[in-house]
Amino acid sequence: MRHSIPTWLEVQADSDFSIHNLPFGVFSTQPNPTPRIGVAIGEYILDMHFLVSEGALDGLSFEIETLQEPVLNSFMALGNEAVRELRARLQLLLSQASTEREPIEEEGLILQSDATMHFPFMIGDYTDFYSSLEHAQNAGKLFRDPDKALFPNWRHLPVGYHGRASSIQLSGVNFHRPCGQIIDKERSTSENLIPKFSPTRALDFELEMATVIGKPSELGQRITAQNAEEHIFGFVLFNDWSARDIQRWEYQPLGPFLGKNFFSSISPWVVTFEALKHFRVKSPAQEPEVLDYLKTEGNRNFDIQLSVEIQAENSLPTVVTQTNFKHMYWNVAQQIAHHTINGCNLNTGDLLASGTISGSEPGSYGCLLEITENGRKSLTLSNNQERVFLQDYDSVIIKGWAEKDDIRVGFGSLFNKVLPAIISSRQ
Amino acid sequence: MRHSIPTWLEVQADSDFSIHNLPFGVFSTQPNPTPRIGVAIGEYILDMHFLVSEGALDGLSFEIETLQEPVLNSFMALGNEAVRELRARLQLLLSQASTEREPIEEEGLILQSDATMHFPFMIGDYTDFYSSLEHAQNAGKLFRDPDKALFPNWRHLPVGYHGRASSIQLSGVNFHRPCGQIIDKERSTSENLIPKFSPTRALDFELEMATVIGKPSELGQRITAQNAEEHIFGFVLFNDWSARDIQRWEYQPLGPFLGKNFFSSISPWVVTFEALKHFRVKSPAQEPEVLDYLKTEGNRNFDIQLSVEIQAENSLPTVVTQTNFKHMYWNVAQQIAHHTINGCNLNTGDLLASGTISGSEPGSYGCLLEITENGRKSLTLSNNQERVFLQDYDSVIIKGWAEKDDIRVGFGSLFNKVLPAIISSRQ
Repeated sequence: MRHSIPTWLEVQADSDFSIHNLPFGVFSTQPNPTPRIGVAIGEYILDMHFLVSEGALDGLSFEIETLQEPVLNSFMALGNEAVRELRARLQLLLSQASTEREPIEEEGLILQSDATMHFPFMIGDYTDFYSSLEHAQNAGKLFRDPDKALFPNWRHLPVGYHGRASSIQLSGVNFHRPCGQIIDKERSTSENLIPKFSPTRALDFELEMATVIGKPSELGQRITAQNAEEHIFGFVLFNDWSARDIQRWEYQPLGPFLGKNFFSSISPWVVTFEALKHFRVKSPAQEPEVLDYLKTEGNRNFDIQLSVEIQAENSLPTVVTQTNFKHMYWNVAQQIAHHTINGCNLNTGDLLASGTISGSEPGSYGCLLEITENGRKSLTLSNNQERVFLQDYDSVIIKGWAEKDDIRVGFGSLFNKVLPAIISSRQ
Repeated sequence: MRHSIPTWLEVQADSDFSIHNLPFGVFSTQPNPTPRIGVAIGEYILDMHFLVSEGALDGLSFEIETLQEPVLNSFMALGNEAVRELRARLQLLLSQASTEREPIEEEGLILQSDATMHFPFMIGDYTDFYSSLEHAQNAGKLFRDPDKALFPNWRHLPVGYHGRASSIQLSGVNFHRPCGQIIDKERSTSENLIPKFSPTRALDFELEMATVIGKPSELGQRITAQNAEEHIFGFVLFNDWSARDIQRWEYQPLGPFLGKNFFSSISPWVVTFEALKHFRVKSPAQEPEVLDYLKTEGNRNFDIQLSVEIQAENSLPTVVTQTNFKHMYWNVAQQIAHHTINGCNLNTGDLLASGTISGSEPGSYGCLLEITENGRKSLTLSNNQERVFLQDYDSVIIKGWAEKDDIRVGFGSLFNKVLPAIISSRQ
């Protein structure tokens, strides 16, 4: 058990950003609009550019200039030894024993409410896995044959596919309901499917977590499941927004495309692997036994509580899902080992999303496709409105946090709102 | 009909790099190892950094400093008006009327054989389409049901999926045969498929062309089929190397992943849309009629001859495929309009590959899966060796060129060699 570190900064007991967390982000302020690296602590941001300039990080063994760049990539590429060292120094600076309190309090701390957050790293490639057994079973039943929900490969490898990096945006960015081809039910027969152009009528969220790659690998190099964690800088909350009707029509045989790539979103603070190590738990048993390169030992899942709320315009949010990252059948070490077994290289800033995270019970499903059984059962919001899929001006709020031994490490929230479709004359 | 421009530089009549081509790349030399932008002309490279420094590009209306960067992105982002202006100036400088011949000859021209080529742009996202009807039919028959080779969506939209950008390399880079999970035929039954770890036994090339995006689009913005060409900086030859046995086991339901992402390759010179406009031809008729946003008029395909050669170690190459880019059912304007119809943004440096390009006759198929009917019919090389899929130390050479009115515009070649698998003890 770890003990809480006494700090001179007041941090609420229920804050996601305790002294044990210290997540990294990129922010700017009105007086200083240059994006720079910060670390969240309570309601504040600790300005890394300032700390380096002040000499408060002198003596650390890594290149501290990486902390003065406008994105996290150079720092993340150093690997987790640098993260461990920096965390220890920051905890010292924030501890009651610190002699640096005064300059930091005066110039190095910015209220989060006074800051604008920016995308924290230059994104590389984005991969989406499909690692929740419950989600794969539920989605397989709804999209395909209920008796053959899982394909034969599912229990042998962490199924994954490539997604679109360019349209991944930060919490707080809103987007327009996407348009595209959907099946025209009025004109189609089972023998002859005919599409029409339409705004999606089946807009969905997907509750996911995403791994942010720190230390990169070379083309041709395999990262073993045993070494995988050294390549994980941290995690963010991830919403893999999906248009189910577009996806259903387009996805065969090469996978989802326009049904997903219109928009995805991440939470602004990257919670480090180092902060989350404390919350590791045993992975679920895997049957049949996996191939050697996918075998992992010890605690490789993470006990992170997750919730999804839907908030209609001018209404209070309604919790529609509560689940946990620990349910994942395939853990992140297995995902990384699989991703590189063929020599595929991972770059700093790559995102590896988990796939929708569902528990086994209703109330713990990670997307509306599952919650409403693809539109068959409606959901009642706190304002008594019904939903089967998302409506215009609905917001989706994802939260995630870990708690153990009176220590709380959280992700804050991921919030985006759906705006109406733009129907252009140039369609 | 265009007339050839007389130049003071000797360019062989059969050169891919005529004065009508002027493709862009990034190169360095031993005396000057800084990567810089160059334009190929005959056997030479015209050094853009030098031309800007010399003042030879003064008076052009775009920011010519973009030509002094180590990658093409800033220049490409300007759009095709800048390309047209620069091409006109370069043709003038190389013409017999030029007064700048002497300094350019002395310091601005580098022999291609003295240069090392670099990846010409910072790559963004990589999308692979599936736009050849012949390939989709052949592959569908071999991977799935011969009677339902095409999915119902195929003739209604240009099917595409996201691929891996990090492992796309330049011509001349060799790679190791990838390993991964393949079906263990000895232990599997039709009811119970069991995988094993193995180097791929079905390594294949895929002959493709890739569009390089210049002018970007914003998230939420649609690029119409009519405006699409203004976003195309140019094209490269593309080899979408594939491991068919890995792909077959993993690809359902979310598409290809490790069967593709171990390695892909492009030719080093980006041939501009402006140079290829001259070779546009009518697109094939599309039946049924496509939705409005996919309609195109005029000549939207490109008459580009393509060939693939396989060269076994210490042997002469054998031509195994001859086909043409003009056969594509879905043209690149349609691909771009479809890609952005849901608001997905395109960035400068994004690659949109065509999918395997096959003609309708044997001898014109774009991959070994089709040529050998998935290993059932072997191919005889010039050294009398047989192939069903690629062997270690085989090289694949892709060539592409357009010819019309005595004007030749070519891509040079795309060449990569297969090295043996690395079987690590850490598998």
